[in-house]
Amino acid sequence: MAQEKRFVEEITPMDVDFAQWYTDVIKKADLVDYSSVRGCMIIKPYGYAIWENIQKKLDARFKETGHENVYMPLFIPESLLQKEKDHVEGFAPEVAWVTHGGNEKLAERLCVRPTSETLFCDHYKNVIQSYRDLPKLYNQWCSVVRWEKTTRPFLRTMEFLWQEGHTAHATAEEAQEETIRMLNVYAEFCEKVLAIPVIKGRKTDKEKFAGAKETYTIESMMHDGKALQSATSHNFGDGFARAFGIQYTDRNNQLQYVHQTSWGMSTRIIGAIIMVHGDDSGLVLPPEIAPVQLVIIPVSQHKEGVLEKAHEIRQRLSRVARVSIDDSDRMPGWKFSEYEMRGVPLRLEVGPRDIEKNQVVLVRRDNREKITVSMDELETRVPQVLEEVQAGLFEKAKKMRDSKIFTALTLEEFQGILEATPGFIKAMWCGDRACEDLIKEKTGATARCIPFEQEHLSDKCVCCGRQAAHMVYWGKAY
Amino acid sequence: MAQEKRFVEEITPMDVDFAQWYTDVIKKADLVDYSSVRGCMIIKPYGYAIWENIQKKLDARFKETGHENVYMPLFIPESLLQKEKDHVEGFAPEVAWVTHGGNEKLAERLCVRPTSETLFCDHYKNVIQSYRDLPKLYNQWCSVVRWEKTTRPFLRTMEFLWQEGHTAHATAEEAQEETIRMLNVYAEFCEKVLAIPVIKGRKTDKEKFAGAKETYTIESMMHDGKALQSATSHNFGDGFARAFGIQYTDRNNQLQYVHQTSWGMSTRIIGAIIMVHGDDSGLVLPPEIAPVQLVIIPVSQHKEGVLEKAHEIRQRLSRVARVSIDDSDRMPGWKFSEYEMRGVPLRLEVGPRDIEKNQVVLVRRDNREKITVSMDELETRVPQVLEEVQAGLFEKAKKMRDSKIFTALTLEEFQGILEATPGFIKAMWCGDRACEDLIKEKTGATARCIPFEQEHLSDKCVCCGRQAAHMVYWGKAY
Repeated sequence: MAQEKRFVEEITPMDVDFAQWYTDVIKKADLVDYSSVRGCMIIKPYGYAIWENIQKKLDARFKETGHENVYMPLFIPESLLQKEKDHVEGFAPEVAWVTHGGNEKLAERLCVRPTSETLFCDHYKNVIQSYRDLPKLYNQWCSVVRWEKTTRPFLRTMEFLWQEGHTAHATAEEAQEETIRMLNVYAEFCEKVLAIPVIKGRKTDKEKFAGAKETYTIESMMHDGKALQSATSHNFGDGFARAFGIQYTDRNNQLQYVHQTSWGMSTRIIGAIIMVHGDDSGLVLPPEIAPVQLVIIPVSQHKEGVLEKAHEIRQRLSRVARVSIDDSDRMPGWKFSEYEMRGVPLRLEVGPRDIEKNQVVLVRRDNREKITVSMDELETRVPQVLEEVQAGLFEKAKKMRDSKIFTALTLEEFQGILEATPGFIKAMWCGDRACEDLIKEKTGATARCIPFEQEHLSDKCVCCGRQAAHMVYWGKAY
Repeated sequence: MAQEKRFVEEITPMDVDFAQWYTDVIKKADLVDYSSVRGCMIIKPYGYAIWENIQKKLDARFKETGHENVYMPLFIPESLLQKEKDHVEGFAPEVAWVTHGGNEKLAERLCVRPTSETLFCDHYKNVIQSYRDLPKLYNQWCSVVRWEKTTRPFLRTMEFLWQEGHTAHATAEEAQEETIRMLNVYAEFCEKVLAIPVIKGRKTDKEKFAGAKETYTIESMMHDGKALQSATSHNFGDGFARAFGIQYTDRNNQLQYVHQTSWGMSTRIIGAIIMVHGDDSGLVLPPEIAPVQLVIIPVSQHKEGVLEKAHEIRQRLSRVARVSIDDSDRMPGWKFSEYEMRGVPLRLEVGPRDIEKNQVVLVRRDNREKITVSMDELETRVPQVLEEVQAGLFEKAKKMRDSKIFTALTLEEFQGILEATPGFIKAMWCGDRACEDLIKEKTGATARCIPFEQEHLSDKCVCCGRQAAHMVYWGKAY
């Protein structure tokens, strides 16, 4: 126990310093390492295996909804980036510029893609001629670069991995349907696969994507009461189509502009997994995306028959779960802490007495519950318990989030709550940018979203007292 | 028939202009498109689906052999690239340089990775301390950039997709074993999955990778008699370890340098698939990686029951193969040509008379053989025939390759063969760079490899007549 305790103490408790807790967890759970390139992270095997599981499950959902994967160039010529006015204003200040190829100075600078709307538009302009060519439902998995000043692994890095969907449709209605469809795919994915409850809504004009007509978002709540924008889905209307000249001939032989969308989720979501489910012992991973769902720890493994039995169990369970075994010569206490820190959802202990009783002990990472299971029922019970952990994590995260949602009717109330107990503030808003700016200035909170599920808290804007137009979720954010 | 013929004629015959044939095929089979970025291609859904199948099967092989995926930064600081002398000499002339971030000039230039040895070394230096940390068996899937002057889709592009494995080992023997193990993985993958026969061997010093002690290669033969280096596996010895200071403490508490390898395969291999299996009707895809393995073409589909039956067959077959159906209102002849051009391995025709006889007709893409199959045996026969196509493609490719392998005992013979019938020339070599250079100068051929399977053709070097050291495969190459 002494050893176990000492080990756990290497992680700074959340309450003492949440930022340090986060840094400790990602380093000690072996998710990332820092690199010699400022602001770029190295994603280590354990971190990358989480991303691979996310990719697999998200990609399957994209394909089920009719999308196809493609690959666009890494570079965007400066003139192409500049075609859509709002878009270039939003992104030009934060791109990396390639100016030389080999020893030669380039005639035109190339930026490393911060996002690929312009490249997809340039391609769509060439391949879309008739209504028969629509819709185009493309997605790509790649890395993008944004020249950030301050960076933190997963949450904000100069380079990050993501997917970006880019679609073109015949009508405004279809584009809007697609935008909401993909927001719903993300929301379902977050809740079912990552066990992260989300609030769905629309961004204010101030917060929307550079060049978008509307941006929709799913917002999740971290342990420290801050929000994390977990995915976004944008409806561009025909803005990009007009800037790039993407037109098709409709059934009546009329030239029309296409209507477009884009939507993305990135490695940032791994930061959310850490900050929603983690605790003072380290990482807690939802079984659906855990690289290892169950780790077998043999107890008194030098005793006859223990290791053989442990390996036999691994063999059996590897057909129903992602299983590993630690039969190294380290103490069981050390191993318990190690795999708790790495967030493995289930631990299976098996020792001489268990073998005698034809049983094993399962220990849940999420609530530390110990469950005795007969050897004869392993293949049925382990998947069940994994499902219980998955469901338990969602419930726990939802309870945590709901405990951090508050209502404010005045700006004073708003400020008071945010200082005392950071979280989401539900408050009415008139819809004016001036009030949004003032709220930010006075409280540090931004409009996270205008939720689809509106509530009528009062008739008045929390800031100016005039007629309210919407209820908004406000909060500080990553 | 007239329509079918006209359609096929859009592809330039191989014999008329092989380069144009290649360009026609990749465009008409919808694999890639050109982009506004010089030398960068857009990989379209059909081309990318082939790459996804390659990735899936190759990645499974890497994991079976104990490798883990990671992600390293896209950028390499100039000082890091320069650490290994031979390596920087080889790559510095062909990298893209980032000089500005946003509006700011960078203190140090960053190159966009042309390959990531330096980044892996920099990381290994930090994470390897003891023999317990070895081996490190890492791989990454990413894109790399090389500033090429002339480019062709898949074969040579400024940006391409690949995987790069990077491993570190305690001993020289282990590194050598790994180098050969991965060469064998590539060879088995090419032959079994891509149906491309390969010659395994070692590169001459002139042709090896910048910074490698030894480079091993698998070489395949294209339809025009040119070679394509299909994958390489490098043994670095401790050269990079010394340059980067990657040391570990061995069991005797002595400091030792690690021994390293790297190995890679890229989207270039799609060029090989096209040029090994393709014909004058277009693409021919091995079933193992074909996005669509069987396409159903209803014949007389306006007749009662035909479309229903076709969809029923699709339903049944989708459990055993990747199946699609074309029930558009185009003529069957058009459809036959279209899916031949796209290289779909099997076509299934079903019309009223077939339905009456409780049968369908399968048509193999590789040899156009027609096979009548009872409706009752679909689920067993289709996978069998797909296997026969896969095996048939390999045999056909092997026969084609073997017909283009020649032996030369003198330089005159060598030149004569290469001018008349391009292919691989087997010839003895003394081992001197001067002879290798002269052969290149006189014939345009390079040493493709010193094959593992040596033959004794004569005692004398084909160039200088002195004592021969090796038999070498020579050839012109992509």
